[in-house]
Amino acid sequence: MSASNGAGGTGGDGRADIGVTGLAVMGSNLARNFARHGYTVAVHNRTKAKTDTLLEEHGEEGMFVPAATAEELVAALATPRRIVVMVKAGDPTDAVISEFAPLLEPGDMIVDGGNAHFEDTRRREHDLRQKGVHFVGAGISGGEEGALNGPSIMPGGSPESYTTLGPMLETIAAKAKDGAPCTTHIGPDGAGHFVKMVHNGIEYADMQLIAEAYHLLREVAGYEPRQIAETFRTWNTGRLDSYLIEITAEVLAHTDAATGKPFVDVVEDQAEQKGTGRWTVQIALDLGVPVSGIGEAVFARSLSGHADLRAASRDLPGPGAGTPLTPDAAAVFADQVEQALYASKIVSYTQGFHMIQAGSDMYDWDIDLGRIAAIWRGGCIIRAAFLDRITAAYDSRPDLPSLLSDKRFAEEIGTAQDDWRSVVAAAVHHGVPVPGFSAALAYYDALRAGRLPAALTQAQRDFFGAHTYRRTDRDGVFHTLWSGDRSEVAVG
Amino acid sequence: MSASNGAGGTGGDGRADIGVTGLAVMGSNLARNFARHGYTVAVHNRTKAKTDTLLEEHGEEGMFVPAATAEELVAALATPRRIVVMVKAGDPTDAVISEFAPLLEPGDMIVDGGNAHFEDTRRREHDLRQKGVHFVGAGISGGEEGALNGPSIMPGGSPESYTTLGPMLETIAAKAKDGAPCTTHIGPDGAGHFVKMVHNGIEYADMQLIAEAYHLLREVAGYEPRQIAETFRTWNTGRLDSYLIEITAEVLAHTDAATGKPFVDVVEDQAEQKGTGRWTVQIALDLGVPVSGIGEAVFARSLSGHADLRAASRDLPGPGAGTPLTPDAAAVFADQVEQALYASKIVSYTQGFHMIQAGSDMYDWDIDLGRIAAIWRGGCIIRAAFLDRITAAYDSRPDLPSLLSDKRFAEEIGTAQDDWRSVVAAAVHHGVPVPGFSAALAYYDALRAGRLPAALTQAQRDFFGAHTYRRTDRDGVFHTLWSGDRSEVAVG
Repeated sequence: MSASNGAGGTGGDGRADIGVTGLAVMGSNLARNFARHGYTVAVHNRTKAKTDTLLEEHGEEGMFVPAATAEELVAALATPRRIVVMVKAGDPTDAVISEFAPLLEPGDMIVDGGNAHFEDTRRREHDLRQKGVHFVGAGISGGEEGALNGPSIMPGGSPESYTTLGPMLETIAAKAKDGAPCTTHIGPDGAGHFVKMVHNGIEYADMQLIAEAYHLLREVAGYEPRQIAETFRTWNTGRLDSYLIEITAEVLAHTDAATGKPFVDVVEDQAEQKGTGRWTVQIALDLGVPVSGIGEAVFARSLSGHADLRAASRDLPGPGAGTPLTPDAAAVFADQVEQALYASKIVSYTQGFHMIQAGSDMYDWDIDLGRIAAIWRGGCIIRAAFLDRITAAYDSRPDLPSLLSDKRFAEEIGTAQDDWRSVVAAAVHHGVPVPGFSAALAYYDALRAGRLPAALTQAQRDFFGAHTYRRTDRDGVFHTLWSGDRSEVAVG
Repeated sequence: MSASNGAGGTGGDGRADIGVTGLAVMGSNLARNFARHGYTVAVHNRTKAKTDTLLEEHGEEGMFVPAATAEELVAALATPRRIVVMVKAGDPTDAVISEFAPLLEPGDMIVDGGNAHFEDTRRREHDLRQKGVHFVGAGISGGEEGALNGPSIMPGGSPESYTTLGPMLETIAAKAKDGAPCTTHIGPDGAGHFVKMVHNGIEYADMQLIAEAYHLLREVAGYEPRQIAETFRTWNTGRLDSYLIEITAEVLAHTDAATGKPFVDVVEDQAEQKGTGRWTVQIALDLGVPVSGIGEAVFARSLSGHADLRAASRDLPGPGAGTPLTPDAAAVFADQVEQALYASKIVSYTQGFHMIQAGSDMYDWDIDLGRIAAIWRGGCIIRAAFLDRITAAYDSRPDLPSLLSDKRFAEEIGTAQDDWRSVVAAAVHHGVPVPGFSAALAYYDALRAGRLPAALTQAQRDFFGAHTYRRTDRDGVFHTLWSGDRSEVAVG
């Protein structure tokens, strides 16, 4: 076994175990994480200054080998070489690959730890495979903090690449409460970046649902941010236990020093986005998977940013102000909101996992859905106790058609649904926008519907465009002669 | 003036006024439409059989000049030549362009009447412009029937191209009730295909809203299809007067001859789609425009098609069956549904026109929004009395920030909102999925909200990713040291 396969010092030939190129915060932190775990890390940056800074500030944390050029980085590495690229997704990634690829030998490996689009990853993997170089697109979640102290890592690429890279990633990854490392081989080529993208989409949906819960507690229950922080803290001790609920309580409890007001009230209410949520929805549309919760979350952010449109719309009529709730009624309502939030969250993950399944089917990735939930339990933004239940659901039935088909989730949503419906109705009557809660409930009701009005849609399409239809009572494809005698003809 | 500029016979040099290549139903019908209006039409198809069929079956309708090859078609045309390409969007369009472009001279024109993606149209226009050939991407709506008897035509391309092409298109286009032709120069390069795409997206949303109204009348009011047909017929005499409402009544009144059942009940409830709705949402995401109504409509269709998932979800718990409405209560409810449908429709068009404005801004198309509504009044699937109001809104204020800023629409939605809210709440309590109505209402309530919980979202982003935020009380970009002493630092 090559010494480079395990932690603890330089490879057998005296060279570094792994290289990192691109030493902005994410890259530096990842390099430090490797070094802190005993790996010798060759580090390189386009401009040498960042390399020097890393060594000056953190050189004592482990074994670093500075490299001034691509050639030096390659020369510093034990073979087969492993180079982690931590640069901006897009053209910079291609530029770095073009620089390093000619210097590598068959069996070497390039790991892209950026937020690449999975289709770019598929292309790059395909191109490098021709040269015998392994290309691993690895989604890394957890931000700067995670990169340093343990992220959730979603590597794609060949199974072969994971046999040597995997143990290193498992060493530096976050550990779930049961000690399991938050990484696994997701699947071939772009599978890792695809799953990371869906992870981010689910994160958008989670955040939107939390925002709606907050808005309802504020506007309908009449709670102040500090009370809402308490509510979220309580929720965080139950089935909603998660990083996002935890930080929501922190944010809502925070007071702005400059004004003495609740912090959330001084923040401009325009949410920004970086693009992976948008990608998720765009790809889901191509795959034909309804991810309405993620869609509404992305749209809610873009709507919030249209300041001019909002300013022009402030005077639009809303419902009359309702009677304020009594403290007891407010407490009951808060419990109902917890039910609505939980039920909507189940739907959100149902949609996200459906999308992963669809991607896996489309690209022959053979993704283990239960394992995906398991490696999101630590390190990443959506880490949550809830994920254990998803793993359990797939463990007990690997061919689960949908998370909603799991007995336990179905029971929980069955218990929650009355409150869920009441909360959406209350929001609607109070004029509080709940696009996420509503979309989740509509998805749920549509999925369980015996008959959908899609039959009318399909009949209309046949009427105006001769797009044909199928029948419920026999096979075949039919068209009605709408502008003729309205008889039916079989067309296939 | 060249004789080819006006209707009535061959050009001054004895050659044809216009050529059509691609003689499937849409192409044949468009060629016949030109011929019926007195133009001499040179016709060509990759396989000659279709050309022969057209001449055999419809040769007496006007002056056709059959062309066996691309060279013959080009030779048959008066100069500057105008060739309308009616082939499948995508590679076939490029193939036809590659075949014809070398045969053309500067000043000649290729018109693509297919459902091209506007980005392809931009590319093709750019490429052909280098050779001095005008490329006009023209969205054509109205299906086979419209192509023959008068479609709504949305031509892009250079203003210069419209000076000679425009009068011909105005001759064959549908006419609105006031006699105005349903075509206009939309804007440069891909503007025509972009607007056609949004037209189709709006069509998806219109159809989804109608489907939800039908579903509610069926499940909540307890109406049979025949009664619902009557309700739609009544609506069609009011402000909802439109082609889609009209054909909905026709479809719902139709009885299946084979079973004696309402036709809508024997149609498989899985709605198909061809892609332009999906494109609309994907492009809207890139433009940062919330088109949630169109998004939900596209997702509703894809959800309906997941037969396995639906079969696995039929037993999910729903609300208990409510007490059936009395006939009087049902009639009241039906009126409320009309209000909800109309209000949701206003939102849907608000979103669609916002998207056209955003596209126009992004690509410098300088689109006249009021004119767009005007040319949709005839020929196309979404033709409706309602469009006159949109034109009036932009006429009275060309810089209208949003349709909802129009006084009349704001008043109407203000009147409708109580019923709209009641209908969504009723749907939610009855377990009837209304993703379109809900999304429209959430958009409305979000747009008019004084404060949105996007502030919380933005604060969370700063907490976990140091993504920074802006403040309501002073300029600048800030970050709170969440894992430090929680003081605030200005970062820009």
